[in-house]
Amino acid sequence: MKKTLKIEGMSCEHCVAAVKKALDAVDGVSAAEVDLDSGTAVIDIAGAVTDETLRAAIEDEGYSVAEIA
Amino acid sequence: MKKTLKIEGMSCEHCVAAVKKALDAVDGVSAAEVDLDSGTAVIDIAGAVTDETLRAAIEDEGYSVAEIA
Repeated sequence: MKKTLKIEGMSCEHCVAAVKKALDAVDGVSAAEVDLDSGTAVIDIAGAVTDETLRAAIEDEGYSVAEIA
Repeated sequence: MKKTLKIEGMSCEHCVAAVKKALDAVDGVSAAEVDLDSGTAVIDIAGAVTDETLRAAIEDEGYSVAEIA
């Protein structure tokens, strides 16, 4: 299953790397692609992951999540 | 001896950390304080360091140096 997250606050490729690392570290996330220009992350979910868990992982890095779809 | 570098391209605290790490790694640099808002680094130099070496360290991280004073 794929989900797309709209993320606010990423300003450079370091931010992209930090968000990708945070998402990759979430149990149940099997892949994460993060794009700076669009401010989005597209993740593959292989297990049970709640939106709240995803949101918390990103907020812990200092970014906010505008939308999860 | 202190030098102040005007650096272009830093957009977030990750950038600040990358620049600080690069400067700290230069032989002869004993301290580096990097500020995002002003786009400057103030370094303490304890040995022989050329401006070219400082410039190269920062450019290797993807930033440019507008001025060294």
